[in-house]
Amino acid sequence: MAGRALVYGGKGALGSTIVSFLRSKNWWVVSVDLFANEEADSNVLVNPEASWTSQETEILEGLSTTLSDNRLDAVLCVAGGWAGGNAAAADMVKNADLMWKQSVWSSAIAARIANLHLKDGGLLTLTGARPAREGTEGMMGYGMAKAAVHQLTKSLAADKSGMPANSTAVAILPVTLDTPMNRKFMPNADFSAWTPLQTVAETFLQWMEGNDRPASGSLLDVVTVDNQTTFTAA
Amino acid sequence: MAGRALVYGGKGALGSTIVSFLRSKNWWVVSVDLFANEEADSNVLVNPEASWTSQETEILEGLSTTLSDNRLDAVLCVAGGWAGGNAAAADMVKNADLMWKQSVWSSAIAARIANLHLKDGGLLTLTGARPAREGTEGMMGYGMAKAAVHQLTKSLAADKSGMPANSTAVAILPVTLDTPMNRKFMPNADFSAWTPLQTVAETFLQWMEGNDRPASGSLLDVVTVDNQTTFTAA
Repeated sequence: MAGRALVYGGKGALGSTIVSFLRSKNWWVVSVDLFANEEADSNVLVNPEASWTSQETEILEGLSTTLSDNRLDAVLCVAGGWAGGNAAAADMVKNADLMWKQSVWSSAIAARIANLHLKDGGLLTLTGARPAREGTEGMMGYGMAKAAVHQLTKSLAADKSGMPANSTAVAILPVTLDTPMNRKFMPNADFSAWTPLQTVAETFLQWMEGNDRPASGSLLDVVTVDNQTTFTAA
Repeated sequence: MAGRALVYGGKGALGSTIVSFLRSKNWWVVSVDLFANEEADSNVLVNPEASWTSQETEILEGLSTTLSDNRLDAVLCVAGGWAGGNAAAADMVKNADLMWKQSVWSSAIAARIANLHLKDGGLLTLTGARPAREGTEGMMGYGMAKAAVHQLTKSLAADKSGMPANSTAVAILPVTLDTPMNRKFMPNADFSAWTPLQTVAETFLQWMEGNDRPASGSLLDVVTVDNQTTFTAA
């Protein structure tokens, strides 16, 4: 076994790609998601009806059981979603609520998982968004949730953050990921400017193996041009 | 009557000071809060047990009734609170949930109020926090909520944000406000570095009257040194 990783959102488009890739490289993988990923070695299910604190309690209990005394080399949080709406939108608040639950509940619980189960020197990745470096007037709730994830990443990089010794917390800030859903809803877009899921999975594995791992607290713009993807700390 | 203002959090320490001050200057004031402020001309009560969207619905209904066709000159959102906790804290998520509800639910609903009831050329103020310009490892949930408020402010300043024409959205970013609660819990602090509530109220009135109003989207550091307070866009 190469190591142990947790993928939060392990049944989503990006998460499934990461689970498959890590399994193919002989990693033991636990998926945390609303639905089980049959490729994972273990699954901890999230109850979408539960409150934030109840989700935290249930996930931490499930993990204690599945991990026993084993520690994780990496916690990869790729849960999230997208919804729009400016201040004139009747569903702005409804969508902001959904974005918060999908991106921030997961990221904060991932931070708690890192505190409790990540190895010294381990890796935590969260998922922000490149557009949230500036105002996001057409998607206010999405921008708020991603700005919160960026803030959490910076907080986790500090000395007394509660992260294990010598561990690393970073966020990737994609523009558009090349997912089936994005292809469905934006069929005429320029796909050569979208980031392939496999590229993200391969980059995470590099960092997990200690190659070119970014400094803790880094917010990494993930930019794809002509099918070439770069991860750059601004 | 000098004008019409809404104070979200109008029964809190800062909110009460603002309500009193504006009433003394002949403004009509509606307070939105968990509890009624008897000094206000009108009160819309918030149900703390309700969801974000239910709070939005109830507050917007209450406002439609109390405002009728009158429009607001200013929406001042000063709701908020403080709670700590890093990733090692068992109550990190619980506190993050509370911070989100106090700061972000209120700010997002204030943005919806501005869309529906603020005059062209009106003023919306939100309340961020100076420390959330950097990582906030000892108060992760607070930092996430305030980063989201900063993001919302930037989003509201854009052309197609849903704000009324020529209106202004800014956030104040205090360090420590001189409230009774802060005096109680930090009795030995240097109060000459705390921002007096009256100073905030007077500054808001200046901006409401069109004097030295900051550019929309400004995040204004509120810094007090030797009892002198400055509001500075970084």
